Amino acid sequence: MSSPLPASARITALDVLDVRFPTSEHLDGSDAMNPEPDYSAAYVVLRTDADDELEGHALAFTTGRGNDVQAAAIAALAPYVVGLPVDELCADLGSFARTLVHDPQLRWLGPEKGAIHMATGAVVNAAWDLAAKRAGKPVWRLLGEMTPEELVAQVDFRWLTDALTPEEALEILRRAEPGRQERVARLLEKGYPAYTTTPGWLGYSDEKLARLAREAVAEGFTQIKLKVGASLDDDVRRMRTARETVGSDIRIAVDANQRWDVQPAIAWMRALAPYDPYWIEEPTSPDDILGHAAVRDAVHPIKVATGEHVANRVVFKQLLQAGAVDIVQLDSARVGGVNENIAILLLAAKFAVPVCPHAGGVGLCEMVQHLSMFDYVAVSGTVEDRVLEYVDHLHEHFVDPVRIADGHYLAPTAPGLSAEMHPASLKEYVYPDGPTWTTRV
Amino acid sequence: MSSPLPASARITALDVLDVRFPTSEHLDGSDAMNPEPDYSAAYVVLRTDADDELEGHALAFTTGRGNDVQAAAIAALAPYVVGLPVDELCADLGSFARTLVHDPQLRWLGPEKGAIHMATGAVVNAAWDLAAKRAGKPVWRLLGEMTPEELVAQVDFRWLTDALTPEEALEILRRAEPGRQERVARLLEKGYPAYTTTPGWLGYSDEKLARLAREAVAEGFTQIKLKVGASLDDDVRRMRTARETVGSDIRIAVDANQRWDVQPAIAWMRALAPYDPYWIEEPTSPDDILGHAAVRDAVHPIKVATGEHVANRVVFKQLLQAGAVDIVQLDSARVGGVNENIAILLLAAKFAVPVCPHAGGVGLCEMVQHLSMFDYVAVSGTVEDRVLEYVDHLHEHFVDPVRIADGHYLAPTAPGLSAEMHPASLKEYVYPDGPTWTTRV
Repeated sequence: MSSPLPASARITALDVLDVRFPTSEHLDGSDAMNPEPDYSAAYVVLRTDADDELEGHALAFTTGRGNDVQAAAIAALAPYVVGLPVDELCADLGSFARTLVHDPQLRWLGPEKGAIHMATGAVVNAAWDLAAKRAGKPVWRLLGEMTPEELVAQVDFRWLTDALTPEEALEILRRAEPGRQERVARLLEKGYPAYTTTPGWLGYSDEKLARLAREAVAEGFTQIKLKVGASLDDDVRRMRTARETVGSDIRIAVDANQRWDVQPAIAWMRALAPYDPYWIEEPTSPDDILGHAAVRDAVHPIKVATGEHVANRVVFKQLLQAGAVDIVQLDSARVGGVNENIAILLLAAKFAVPVCPHAGGVGLCEMVQHLSMFDYVAVSGTVEDRVLEYVDHLHEHFVDPVRIADGHYLAPTAPGLSAEMHPASLKEYVYPDGPTWTTRV
Repeated sequence: MSSPLPASARITALDVLDVRFPTSEHLDGSDAMNPEPDYSAAYVVLRTDADDELEGHALAFTTGRGNDVQAAAIAALAPYVVGLPVDELCADLGSFARTLVHDPQLRWLGPEKGAIHMATGAVVNAAWDLAAKRAGKPVWRLLGEMTPEELVAQVDFRWLTDALTPEEALEILRRAEPGRQERVARLLEKGYPAYTTTPGWLGYSDEKLARLAREAVAEGFTQIKLKVGASLDDDVRRMRTARETVGSDIRIAVDANQRWDVQPAIAWMRALAPYDPYWIEEPTSPDDILGHAAVRDAVHPIKVATGEHVANRVVFKQLLQAGAVDIVQLDSARVGGVNENIAILLLAAKFAVPVCPHAGGVGLCEMVQHLSMFDYVAVSGTVEDRVLEYVDHLHEHFVDPVRIADGHYLAPTAPGLSAEMHPASLKEYVYPDGPTWTTRV
């Protein structure tokens, strides 16, 4: 479906911008481990010399300091993409993603974790944005129209085959082929179910929490989320306030943002249990597979969720193998981009665990909606017990912002990954030289 | 023991250098995942305004490309150390290390993994180098003279307490107090047992392998190591060559550098088993705790070892909890510095698993010898089944290089962490402007 282009069109540049928003001033985004985040993006643009003037945009999300390190990691990948023929790149993004991940020198900085892996994710996602724009489709539809064989070719199965082989992946995808069209139609009509974290930031007063929770229910959300983990007394009071406000039919998830060791996590959740929390998110270290398994055993029937800081598919594989999580919370910008997230969706499908992605930050809602919708169309084939996080922050800076109606993400229809920001926003918030920052320092 | 200094002495600068050695030209350091490494150091110097003119030197090791990203990550930590009073810093390195690790914005890039965590390790290690120089002692002796209480205060117990509490750590250290002096004396007399990887690089011919293996035995080593994982036929032949060369009394470890999935690892090791490999190192992903446990179950009595790429103490904790490893191979420059490595030594002691550190690269032998010697003096109290990796690369660039005699590391006596490089070497190999690189590009 790509437009007819001269065979010579190549990637001519990988530009990186350090973009930061002073969100710490209003405690939006405050939680037990992130008291004062300045939501930031290490923003990447792939440029080509094609006549269509299309660009690939994506970003790695950070919380402020360190965004310059993230930008440097992205810049280090420029030699791997600048000069590539655009047609070849877009025709085989699986090989491209594996080239970045397997580079024998860069991988020392990971392997497949931290700044270098998030950089890979940003560049791979930018390439998907470009490929989808050239195809004239949103990424979720581009993915949803690929054959099972084409999708399997996107995945790096290294280190996965004890849990998921290419043959098993193919079987999962083939099983979901019937009904793809109906599910696309349903998404275009109703959208994908969402939940909202907007009421629950730790820095908000009880009054603000109650007001925002009431508004969330009125807006059609059936699940909200509260940040917990700083003070047990406060959390019990906030959880009671939230439960009294929304009643017993609305799910209330809680999120500790890694604050606890295993035993304190269990004790804390027992204290909150009378208010019927739906899931506990990030009870402890995102690396602690066995710790999550121990917490899950102890707090049942409260569900255990994690993923926004899970470094890669190997850790997700083990969380599933160990029965450590009830909910997989993949993130669009933490792992190695769309390709590794396809692997994670397939792993979750293999183990029959629902994926409820992490979002928020800067542009994470915009990007990850494509993954959940693709999951529904072509992988899990269901939205049962699936909800996609929604946070009402910073969407005004995006060219194709998420649209929420009646507690659902409406399906994006513009071509690409929806990560492109307005030029005026990039100019205003670029760090440290944008007007927002020069007037503050 | 620090010299009398004006209370006003402060850290005045954190300098970072990108230093690279063109080791790929001779295939030194070649293995199944690192075919052509250019051993590199993101080198850090802490400067003060104290009259003693002492500096803190340390480094993060990388394999070439990406060393600039690593240097950027270290530079991002400058605001956390520049301006600190030197006395206070050196008197409480535990608090300093926790300040870096817990920074609520920087931790988004990890948490505690990848470039930002290796940067923390480099800066923390530089602070230990400075503290030890001010105390007039090598780091292993500075540590070995601390009380159990002082040592426990160095450790960040976050996420560890389900496996190791401060009280248990104290008990381990108290149990090892008797005999410290005798063990110091033994180290000063005999040194710490080593093994050598010099014969086994994948790029070497069979003749070179056999010659270097013979030399290693003649030099007093009782263990050598071979890189494996690129070709099974080659590995069987190389392993047979090595075994025929050294005889049955010398231990031969093999190292796959993460090359395999779980089932291929098991099959490969069964093919090598007739030649009696002592351990298989990094059979699969360093993140794959359950995978290592499966390999260990299947290849017994061949031991399973890993650690050089294990991101932090939480992953080591689980490798031990899951019974996934027989050997803990901590690395001086992968995790959060001396402080996190004290935690890892204590975890290994708790689970009674020997620590045989990873070394090689640039300066890793120099730094890690302090940790093994400290382990012997004050933690495990034994060298039984402990060997410290030795690779004969690049030591000539260090002011206080490791000294090997009769298959042992001789105990360093100069103050500090032994990571300081000669100014002439830094000047020659700085990238991309040093003469070594300008004449190549």
